[in-house]
Amino acid sequence: MLQLSKFPFKTLKTLPKVSDNRSTSLLLQGGYIRQAMSGAYEFLPMGHRVIQKISEVIREEMDLAWYHEMKMTILTPKEFWEKTGRWDIEDYFKVPGHGGSEYRIAPTNEENVTPIMNEFINSYKDLPTCVYHIQKKFRNEKRAKSWLLRGREFLMKDAYSFHADMENFQEFYEDVKKVYLKIYERLWLWADTVIADADGGAISDQNSHEFQTFLDIGEDIIVTDSWGYCYNLELASGIADDKNIDEAEKDLEYMDTVEDIVNMKKMTAYFEAPDWQMLKTVIYRLTSPNLSWKERDNMDKIKYIWVSLRGDLDISEVKLRQFVQSKYGNQSLSLATEDDLASIWTVRGFISPIKDAGLDVVFYGDDSLKTVKNFFWGANALAKSTKNLNIRDLDIEEYHNFAEPKEWFTSLNIAGEKLQFRKASEVGNIFHLWTKYTKPFWVSYLDADNTMQDQVEMWCYGIWVSRLMGVMAEYFMTEKGINWPDWIAPYDYVVIVIWEQNLEKSIQIGQELESNWQSVILDDRMGRKDGFWQKIWDAELWGIPNKIIISPKTLDQGWYELQIRWEETKIVKL
Amino acid sequence: MLQLSKFPFKTLKTLPKVSDNRSTSLLLQGGYIRQAMSGAYEFLPMGHRVIQKISEVIREEMDLAWYHEMKMTILTPKEFWEKTGRWDIEDYFKVPGHGGSEYRIAPTNEENVTPIMNEFINSYKDLPTCVYHIQKKFRNEKRAKSWLLRGREFLMKDAYSFHADMENFQEFYEDVKKVYLKIYERLWLWADTVIADADGGAISDQNSHEFQTFLDIGEDIIVTDSWGYCYNLELASGIADDKNIDEAEKDLEYMDTVEDIVNMKKMTAYFEAPDWQMLKTVIYRLTSPNLSWKERDNMDKIKYIWVSLRGDLDISEVKLRQFVQSKYGNQSLSLATEDDLASIWTVRGFISPIKDAGLDVVFYGDDSLKTVKNFFWGANALAKSTKNLNIRDLDIEEYHNFAEPKEWFTSLNIAGEKLQFRKASEVGNIFHLWTKYTKPFWVSYLDADNTMQDQVEMWCYGIWVSRLMGVMAEYFMTEKGINWPDWIAPYDYVVIVIWEQNLEKSIQIGQELESNWQSVILDDRMGRKDGFWQKIWDAELWGIPNKIIISPKTLDQGWYELQIRWEETKIVKL
Repeated sequence: MLQLSKFPFKTLKTLPKVSDNRSTSLLLQGGYIRQAMSGAYEFLPMGHRVIQKISEVIREEMDLAWYHEMKMTILTPKEFWEKTGRWDIEDYFKVPGHGGSEYRIAPTNEENVTPIMNEFINSYKDLPTCVYHIQKKFRNEKRAKSWLLRGREFLMKDAYSFHADMENFQEFYEDVKKVYLKIYERLWLWADTVIADADGGAISDQNSHEFQTFLDIGEDIIVTDSWGYCYNLELASGIADDKNIDEAEKDLEYMDTVEDIVNMKKMTAYFEAPDWQMLKTVIYRLTSPNLSWKERDNMDKIKYIWVSLRGDLDISEVKLRQFVQSKYGNQSLSLATEDDLASIWTVRGFISPIKDAGLDVVFYGDDSLKTVKNFFWGANALAKSTKNLNIRDLDIEEYHNFAEPKEWFTSLNIAGEKLQFRKASEVGNIFHLWTKYTKPFWVSYLDADNTMQDQVEMWCYGIWVSRLMGVMAEYFMTEKGINWPDWIAPYDYVVIVIWEQNLEKSIQIGQELESNWQSVILDDRMGRKDGFWQKIWDAELWGIPNKIIISPKTLDQGWYELQIRWEETKIVKL
Repeated sequence: MLQLSKFPFKTLKTLPKVSDNRSTSLLLQGGYIRQAMSGAYEFLPMGHRVIQKISEVIREEMDLAWYHEMKMTILTPKEFWEKTGRWDIEDYFKVPGHGGSEYRIAPTNEENVTPIMNEFINSYKDLPTCVYHIQKKFRNEKRAKSWLLRGREFLMKDAYSFHADMENFQEFYEDVKKVYLKIYERLWLWADTVIADADGGAISDQNSHEFQTFLDIGEDIIVTDSWGYCYNLELASGIADDKNIDEAEKDLEYMDTVEDIVNMKKMTAYFEAPDWQMLKTVIYRLTSPNLSWKERDNMDKIKYIWVSLRGDLDISEVKLRQFVQSKYGNQSLSLATEDDLASIWTVRGFISPIKDAGLDVVFYGDDSLKTVKNFFWGANALAKSTKNLNIRDLDIEEYHNFAEPKEWFTSLNIAGEKLQFRKASEVGNIFHLWTKYTKPFWVSYLDADNTMQDQVEMWCYGIWVSRLMGVMAEYFMTEKGINWPDWIAPYDYVVIVIWEQNLEKSIQIGQELESNWQSVILDDRMGRKDGFWQKIWDAELWGIPNKIIISPKTLDQGWYELQIRWEETKIVKL
């Protein structure tokens, strides 16, 4: 039983101001956390109990599902990361050792888990299998902000599963999803947590999902419709409104303009037309570092892609990247430079998707082009423009949804319904890693026919435990404190002792609760500064769900007051 | 319930060879651990359970004693370490961040805990207080060896206490000692774990103790006698044997010798006398970086100390350092250079503790000088020596026990009893940190008279959790596996299923055990490779204390076999 008179971690009398969010102020005021440096936080006893309890919920649900807990290292050798080509990622720390050696403090553990499991995966009978650990991770963030939501040091549960083929994954994935949803349910977040389709970065694909909890201070934007559509903004699509679509197509005109109409503002002013009537075209260069010679041959023909869309919209590079990956495999995408543009006979500000004979480029168009007639734009030469440009004039190879949706876009699923945009914070994710890690570490197995197979698919499953604590603090905060779920609150009961003369009896009541597996704080602080209300405030700050108030008057009459959260005060007879 | 048929972490058929120790081979064979790199180890599920259980024992005992658990950061800012002058310690990692920033992954957490507690220590009522955490630590070891016994990454429980004065510490310390001894008792190590007086390095003192478990592969040597004397070798003292002590003292003679008798071997050959009859003298220079001007004035007079001892013995620099600290306060000690020697009118190989008038040096003598008559040695000039040197001729200021004891030394406490030397491994320690950390972080409090006090004494208490696991593996290993203590073994019960037809019944038996809070492995592996004996061997390797053997024959008769460790096999009726 925690006796507060012996507990040095006092709450603060006033709410400290931090720029990011009010829940962080409450966590500081309640003595849950303290900043060691920007991006790294000390968990004081109250905060430590909360994060341990969140971890415990995760652990229990993972264990029930037969995933095996272990503990991988934080310090990892450079060789692991070189093997997978991830040594030089800027946001991962490098740690110099003696004699020129270098290590990494792990930001994620694919490079540990794959060689470990390689030792133990021998037969098809060993697959699928899933292991996990809960451990601190490190990212070399340029700017660490939002406190627990994004740190340089953070606690994460990361699980990794290995599969003989994609077929048996779907079933497995449904199980993981159930485990995750059960976790968010037990954390009382289920009503506002959604599964969004997400981009897993260059290493992942459409089998990647994020668990997002709606939160005003969230870093992500989730786009939904009432049909059940749920995507991270960077991947979301919708339908742009029709503009002058009923207008007749006029004849294409080439015209001399001026050199400096190289941005949207100048162009709309010059042409005296709205931005949506401009035919914006962006050129990307594809580079492919790891191609075979044969693949490289094919690639040489398609070095540049031109993407056109309405002038009032922007390209979602994440969607574009996925599109390119599906068409051309693993590619790096970069904006074309001035030299690139010159080499393909065009010039910035006057790019137009009209093909010159003999030029090896590909044109793609955003679906939004179909909502406008008679576009204005350049003619691939300085101060040369076009007018009344229409789809009929363009050499578009394929139309696709490249634009980042705007709040006035409508749903792809329910005609005319506006998309919903909500801020959210990522609390978990599932990424398909394909064979990106299993191949470099030579993971293989003998199949049922005793044939060696080296196609081992890998998935990873993350839950940001320390972020979850930050999300929960924000989600459950009230005017007075943080209303943690019953099993997450640092203690089950607080016993508030008003007069010292009742201390002995109060200890006895606390001990009885403890013998029934309840955790108890005894607020036995006496003195002017620690009056009844201070005790109540601190109990609220800590979100203790059950308060017992011991007063000599009621005790004399043989009862005490029990305040259970959200219930009316009860009288408990001794 | 762990079903081994679904568990990928198979044991190895043969014992892998590692140079250090056999218990590590067993840990590898049993799938407890795996090396990620030299000095950093993956804890696979079995090893993870063991280390978690050891941590849990520590946590329970610490909590019972009212120490408050928290979790400090691993990443720490450079400023913390600069404040205490520890930034440039070679064995601590420095981690470069963006824009020239540098962090440290913490090897210990004084630099975190002191500013934290500074926020919460305001009044004498807040003292004493003690906080702890169990977390991974990092050391930039040049060579990581001995596996779990000494890693670059290791798990440690570190506690820190703060005290208003030294007086109330003794009582507090006795409590900590009890907690520690209880922990080693629960880990079944008590019979071979001793408390040794130890050196806490430059920052600590005689209030420092190590908990050492006797172990043949231990890195330390512990010196004991039957009276209860128990010291780390580097601090131990004893009595050197008397040599020619009954010889008459002859007249001191100066003589011309040769230039090259500058080591013990050459000298004994030249003088044709045993090494113990040489009067070895070593000169140290004291430097004191942080003295006040007044203190510096006094120090200028005593820049060099000369320490003499028998030629067959060596100085324990740790003891010398403590002696110097007690005489002169905090000093750096270094061997005098050739230039130093010239400045004080002597020369290497011919140093003799005979004072020249006007020379400001101090002579100290080891007690062993009293066991020999008629020493040989130099005369503070090249190729000049002395013969029949006796205590009467020396200007020794004070005699003290500076020599590192040899195995033939006798006890200081029991006349004539030989000292015992035993190898041991440090499993815990208690260091007095004085005000080394509280001063730079300005920790202060208001005393009972409302006066500000800035003398806050600090102690730290470590338990190397991952080393403890290595020590226990070595300590409890048998021919077949590791006989962990009951509550440390990865599981309480193994249920061995011999025939698949009994699987359902076996699961039921396992579940019944689980509902009684027992943890259970069900060994349901079938097939040629996983016969009865493999199952028994694996159970031994994992040190599971209770084995249930399910065979169709006994089950038909309504019973099964229960093998409780160290007991006769029992028959349990269904």
